[in-house]
Amino acid sequence: MGAVVDKAGHGAVAIVTVDQPSSQASRGKAPRTARGEKTLRKILDAALAEFGQRGFHESSIVGITSRAKVALGTFYTYFDSKEAVFAALVQDMSRQVRDYVYPLLEGSTDGIDRERRGLAAYLRFVVDNKEVYRIIDEAEFVDPSGFRTHYETAASRIASRLADATAKGEIRDDGELANEVRAWAIMGINVFLGLRFGVWAAEDPDQVAAHANALLRKGLEP
Amino acid sequence: MGAVVDKAGHGAVAIVTVDQPSSQASRGKAPRTARGEKTLRKILDAALAEFGQRGFHESSIVGITSRAKVALGTFYTYFDSKEAVFAALVQDMSRQVRDYVYPLLEGSTDGIDRERRGLAAYLRFVVDNKEVYRIIDEAEFVDPSGFRTHYETAASRIASRLADATAKGEIRDDGELANEVRAWAIMGINVFLGLRFGVWAAEDPDQVAAHANALLRKGLEP
Repeated sequence: MGAVVDKAGHGAVAIVTVDQPSSQASRGKAPRTARGEKTLRKILDAALAEFGQRGFHESSIVGITSRAKVALGTFYTYFDSKEAVFAALVQDMSRQVRDYVYPLLEGSTDGIDRERRGLAAYLRFVVDNKEVYRIIDEAEFVDPSGFRTHYETAASRIASRLADATAKGEIRDDGELANEVRAWAIMGINVFLGLRFGVWAAEDPDQVAAHANALLRKGLEP
Repeated sequence: MGAVVDKAGHGAVAIVTVDQPSSQASRGKAPRTARGEKTLRKILDAALAEFGQRGFHESSIVGITSRAKVALGTFYTYFDSKEAVFAALVQDMSRQVRDYVYPLLEGSTDGIDRERRGLAAYLRFVVDNKEVYRIIDEAEFVDPSGFRTHYETAASRIASRLADATAKGEIRDDGELANEVRAWAIMGINVFLGLRFGVWAAEDPDQVAAHANALLRKGLEP
C-alpha cells in the first residue's frame, strides 16, 4: 500500500508506511495516518489502565473508550472486540519491554554483562509499569497463544544473545540444549526478580541485578 | 479437640488429629474423620480437574460435585463457595509440590546438588500435573493473597536451604540480599523450566536439571 497522507492534512508527519501495518489493530484495521496511530496509542494506554485495574472480566469497551476519551465507534475502527484489544495490548507490552531494554544493553563489556544490563533495565521498567505482570499473566487465560508467543519470543531473544556470546568464547559452550535451558532460566530469573523486587517491593535495581549477575557469571560456588 | 474416631467405625485408620485441622476446608469445616478427609480429597481432585480444564469463571460447584460424585450438600460441608474451594486448591497444590519434591532431596552431596535434585523432581511433578500452572497462575486473579503466599512460601523454603548451605561453606557468602535474590532466581528458573520443558514440551528432566545446575554451580564463564 505504500505511504498515505493523513486526510486531515498534517503533512509530512502524517506520512506513515503501512507496508508493515501496526499488527496491534485488528486485521484490516491498522491506522493509515499518524493521527490514527495516535488514537490507537490512546486506546492501548486506556486499555492498559482498564485491564490492569479491573482485570479482563470486569473490564468493558466503554470503560476503555471513556478513559481514552474517544467515541465507541472509534474503538471499532481499530478493534473487533474486547478480546482483540487485549491481545493487541499483550503484543504492545512485549514490544514496550523490548524497546525500553534494548538500547540500555549498549556498552556491555561481554555477553554476561549484557544480561546484567538487561535485568537492571527490566527492573526499572517494571517499577514504572507494574500492570505489565497482570496483563501478561492474564493472557494465559484470555489469549493463550499470545501468552506463549510473548515468552517464546523473549526466550529466543535471550537465546540469540547467548549464542552470540558463546561464539565469541565469552560463555562456556555446553551445547544447544544448555543454551536453551540457560535462556529460559535467565527469563525466569528476570520475571521473578521483577515480581519480587519491582512489583511487590522496591529494591535498588542495580544491586539486585549485580547479585543475579554474579550468579550467572560464576555460580554459587565459594 | 484431640483425636476423634470416624462415626462409621473404621477404627484405627479413622483416627485423625484435628489439633492442626486441614486448613484446606473453609473455617470451621475441617473434616473430623478419615472418611471426611477422603471426601475432601475427592472434592479437591475434582476441583483440580474442573478448574484446570475450564478455568475459574467457566467452572461451577455442580461441575465439581458431579466429577467428585458427591452431593451438593456435601460440598457445603467443607466449603463456603467456589472461591473457597479454589483457594483451598492453591494451598493443596503448594503442599503437593512440596511433599513430592522434599523426599527426593535426600542424598544430596551439597547445597547446590540439592537444588539439582529439587528441579529434577519438580520437572517430574509438572509432567504428571500440568494443571498446576493453570491453577497457580489463575490464583493471581481469583485469590491474590493465596498467589503471593504460594510464591513467598516456596522462595522462603529455598532461602532457608541456601542459608544452610552458606553456613556450611558450600556456597559463597555474599550477604543477605544475595541469598534472597538467589532464592527468587532459583524459583524463577524452576517455574520457567517447568513451563518450557514440562508443560509445553517434554525433555529429559535429569538433563535439563543438570544444565541448570551447572549454571548454578559455576555460572556461564568458560
